[in-house]
Amino acid sequence: MRTSQYLLATLKETPSDAEVVSHQLMLRAGMIRKLASGLYTWLPSGVKVLKKVENIVREEMNKAGAIEMLMPIIQPAELWQESGRWEQYGPELLRIEDRHNRPFALGPTHEEVITDCIRREVSSYKQLPITLYQIQTKVRDEIRPRFGIMRSREFMMKDAYSFHLSEECLAQTYEKLHQAYCNIFDRLGLDYRPVLADTGSIGGSFSHEFHVLAESGEDAIAFSDGSDYAANIEKAEALAPSDARPEPSKELQKFDTPNAKTIAELKEHYGVKPHRGVKTLFVYGEENEQGERGLVALVVRGDHELNELKAEKLAGVFSPLEMAKEEDIVATVGARPGSLGPVGLTVPIIVDRSAAVMADFVAGANSDDVHYSGINWERDVTGYEVADIRNVVEGDPSPCGQGTLSIKRGIEVGHIFQLGTKYSEAMNAGVLGEDGKNQTMTMGCYGIGVSRVVAAAIEQNNDQYGIIWPKNIAPFEVAIVPMNMHKSHRIPDIAERFYSELQAAGVDVLFDDRKERPGVMFNDMELLGVPYTLVIGERNLDNDEVELKNRRTGEKTMLKIDDAVAAIVAKLQQD
Amino acid sequence: MRTSQYLLATLKETPSDAEVVSHQLMLRAGMIRKLASGLYTWLPSGVKVLKKVENIVREEMNKAGAIEMLMPIIQPAELWQESGRWEQYGPELLRIEDRHNRPFALGPTHEEVITDCIRREVSSYKQLPITLYQIQTKVRDEIRPRFGIMRSREFMMKDAYSFHLSEECLAQTYEKLHQAYCNIFDRLGLDYRPVLADTGSIGGSFSHEFHVLAESGEDAIAFSDGSDYAANIEKAEALAPSDARPEPSKELQKFDTPNAKTIAELKEHYGVKPHRGVKTLFVYGEENEQGERGLVALVVRGDHELNELKAEKLAGVFSPLEMAKEEDIVATVGARPGSLGPVGLTVPIIVDRSAAVMADFVAGANSDDVHYSGINWERDVTGYEVADIRNVVEGDPSPCGQGTLSIKRGIEVGHIFQLGTKYSEAMNAGVLGEDGKNQTMTMGCYGIGVSRVVAAAIEQNNDQYGIIWPKNIAPFEVAIVPMNMHKSHRIPDIAERFYSELQAAGVDVLFDDRKERPGVMFNDMELLGVPYTLVIGERNLDNDEVELKNRRTGEKTMLKIDDAVAAIVAKLQQD
Repeated sequence: MRTSQYLLATLKETPSDAEVVSHQLMLRAGMIRKLASGLYTWLPSGVKVLKKVENIVREEMNKAGAIEMLMPIIQPAELWQESGRWEQYGPELLRIEDRHNRPFALGPTHEEVITDCIRREVSSYKQLPITLYQIQTKVRDEIRPRFGIMRSREFMMKDAYSFHLSEECLAQTYEKLHQAYCNIFDRLGLDYRPVLADTGSIGGSFSHEFHVLAESGEDAIAFSDGSDYAANIEKAEALAPSDARPEPSKELQKFDTPNAKTIAELKEHYGVKPHRGVKTLFVYGEENEQGERGLVALVVRGDHELNELKAEKLAGVFSPLEMAKEEDIVATVGARPGSLGPVGLTVPIIVDRSAAVMADFVAGANSDDVHYSGINWERDVTGYEVADIRNVVEGDPSPCGQGTLSIKRGIEVGHIFQLGTKYSEAMNAGVLGEDGKNQTMTMGCYGIGVSRVVAAAIEQNNDQYGIIWPKNIAPFEVAIVPMNMHKSHRIPDIAERFYSELQAAGVDVLFDDRKERPGVMFNDMELLGVPYTLVIGERNLDNDEVELKNRRTGEKTMLKIDDAVAAIVAKLQQD
Repeated sequence: MRTSQYLLATLKETPSDAEVVSHQLMLRAGMIRKLASGLYTWLPSGVKVLKKVENIVREEMNKAGAIEMLMPIIQPAELWQESGRWEQYGPELLRIEDRHNRPFALGPTHEEVITDCIRREVSSYKQLPITLYQIQTKVRDEIRPRFGIMRSREFMMKDAYSFHLSEECLAQTYEKLHQAYCNIFDRLGLDYRPVLADTGSIGGSFSHEFHVLAESGEDAIAFSDGSDYAANIEKAEALAPSDARPEPSKELQKFDTPNAKTIAELKEHYGVKPHRGVKTLFVYGEENEQGERGLVALVVRGDHELNELKAEKLAGVFSPLEMAKEEDIVATVGARPGSLGPVGLTVPIIVDRSAAVMADFVAGANSDDVHYSGINWERDVTGYEVADIRNVVEGDPSPCGQGTLSIKRGIEVGHIFQLGTKYSEAMNAGVLGEDGKNQTMTMGCYGIGVSRVVAAAIEQNNDQYGIIWPKNIAPFEVAIVPMNMHKSHRIPDIAERFYSELQAAGVDVLFDDRKERPGVMFNDMELLGVPYTLVIGERNLDNDEVELKNRRTGEKTMLKIDDAVAAIVAKLQQD
């Protein structure tokens, strides 16, 4: 491709509404443009990367035995009603009506459609297992789209679905696709981790996310230093401390705390160390027979954070978790947030494992501007339950039993689920088993955010000059930059020769044939993140040489003109 | 691919709701399934064909210098309001609202979005010309979706758009893309014709459609036998007859025609040959200053058909053409349809060129159940206009001046337009010209119905046994059918060997490894339309031979086992 015939569309200024570096660089490098909130046009450089990602995903899915298909974006409401998700799914499900006022949804995912398809097409155990996938535009009407294509309303997904006769068979396919995902992210050239994850609204029993590691990631991931255990912090278990709870050594005492509503203020004004106090959070409990919801108190150590996903799964807690309104707390407890604690409560109390081994600790006294010190479990508070309801922190023991945890940030780019029979049961998707009896199929589902991978790759691979693409997904592998091409005949001739020879060698080349100053061209190629730039200048030509610059290392290599193509091809192969 | 691990999904019965052969065969061959009216899931065999078509289109578009990009499916209403099409486009434009009640449309085409993109990204004449394209899901909310994916609500399009400084530059790119389209349809292996076409609701001045010839086609195309002239019948000009109008030789006479409301009945009961009578059709005229529309009479020879597109373009005729209601005709003319004619009319009369050279002809007398004979222009009717308002018929002289016309049926699979400045003017899309002044860009647009190509290919290539794929878009190139595989060790061994050797040779193979009777397997492979079937049977193996069957010709060739792979590869290359 010649830049003169291309839509390079690079920008010098960083657009002010782009918060994260991938969004900034995708705009600046001319990869995307915003059409409307959460809707982006992919410009040529963006599409080139997107298609390279898509092709790698497709090849590895095919190798893993998955079969490509394509389902409609527009899905009839009936199927979502059948699975129950028409009611459960929030306004992120973009519901529309056709010209006959029939209700449809624009698909954010396709469990219902594929389950309907397979219950019609597959009737015998002999046709199982089968794994199908599609690479397709998905729609999710995000309330607040942001970070460019990282959280957009229209995006590209690879979604796969597998169907089985048994859990064991599902586990085998799950393992095979887990491996395929590793192969995909290896080929994409990304630093990633598969981590244990929560199954969320998709449902199912067992799940891994694939995260591209990057400091800007929205997710926190816990890694063990003693094993390959890795889990989303949403999911990572905080083990019960091995130490027994010390015996009480202090008396329960009230003290006035007019200046302390938070753990930080308790420390600042009254010297209470955070790990010596507890936070008491009120949420709603499950509905009783009259449809009323009481409150439930959740107690975690002052330096710990509540894990909402863990809490909402507990019996007696309303799901999805909802923090109690202040008026309900005041009505029930008689005090406002900032002075709440477990002593004297009449509502159910759930205490985090780490909080449950504290002694002589501090908490609010359920009286405005008053706290207790010297609180002890059993002596001062009884009838509570103990559970894991906090996020793990750096230094916690790994739940795998080996090593301690450290926390890193990641961007979720893939997610695989052992769904079980959630959809097949609701939608009555069964086959005739070997015994001639109908048997509900067991399902798995497997997603990769194809467009999100592009942003995640940039979050992980960039510097002050722009993007640094892994070779396999770079919009171009080599950029030819002839310096002051219009001042010499020799330079354009050599540049043209390299352009045709590199193309003939199968290299994806961008030939910057604009009449621009060398600085402008270098800046554009660095911004665009082309792995190698071949610089053709008068002085080097006097020595029959050209210069090859590596975008990632900055290393410059002088190559003899006649050897350059072979050398570039070799470098691209060994990278 | 092994059938045992594939979703073959063939059907024995022809589904009752499939009217055309491509729809029937796509269902029976397991290529598509209906999800809802006009919404289809592409099963694996369907997607394989679709992707092959898509790749050929992409490769040829790239060769022609077009650059791939990708625009959102969801388009903001504002852009359609700016172009004026938000109002003009009917309910086929599927309008939706997001969670914030903002209006959007699901894109049936992308002129607005690309024009908006280019007016932002391209500012100088130096960046022109440029041609961009995308291959993307489109949505059109058809009032009556039918013929499977031929007229569905969600479909796959390649749409391209070019931007220019001048009409001449547009004409050059148009020519280049016309050639690219020929290359595409050549590679697809289809019998097709580029034909002159009407520009319809997309607009512009000059346009070609690409038609796959098939008797089931919805469009009629006029071909010259003396040149390569070809045009959609909507567009083909009916030349003025070269003969002068004969002098009147009969008197104007009324005769009663109680049994004749139609040209056929006039012939049956009164012996009037259709080419000796005229039809007089009333449509609405343009609105006057009071917003009222009078009637206009359109007169064509009795054996000719009105061409509505030609008529609605005439000055004085309301567009889109609307046939007058009977009550309006009675109020104006004093007679009901069936007895209408040009004599004595006070409304504007437009006479087709062929009708205008008639003498002594028959028409209604504008009095119920009465006709005139011996009508002559000028003597009996004055003040009329003459224009081309009929469809051409077999035997008409070609408008190119060479040869006569014949009519064939075609399926429109591509359409290219010289748009001119319709969108760029409405949306104020200009660049700085060489003279430093702002200049409106001139545009072209170029579509291929990627999914429709699949159906059109089947309409053109099928027989009583199923589909007969052109090699380049067949779901598989070769099917291996081992006969009674479970009865012998030798057969599965040889079959496996062919499977791996053919794959290694780059052949797209389907290995039918099901435990089915040979007849079932042959039928499925013929239905699916695989170009070659390699049959492995005991008796032939005794001679070290296998049989290769050509799907299109039915020809069977015996091949020595050791030569078979090379022979198959050679056949596929030479086809």
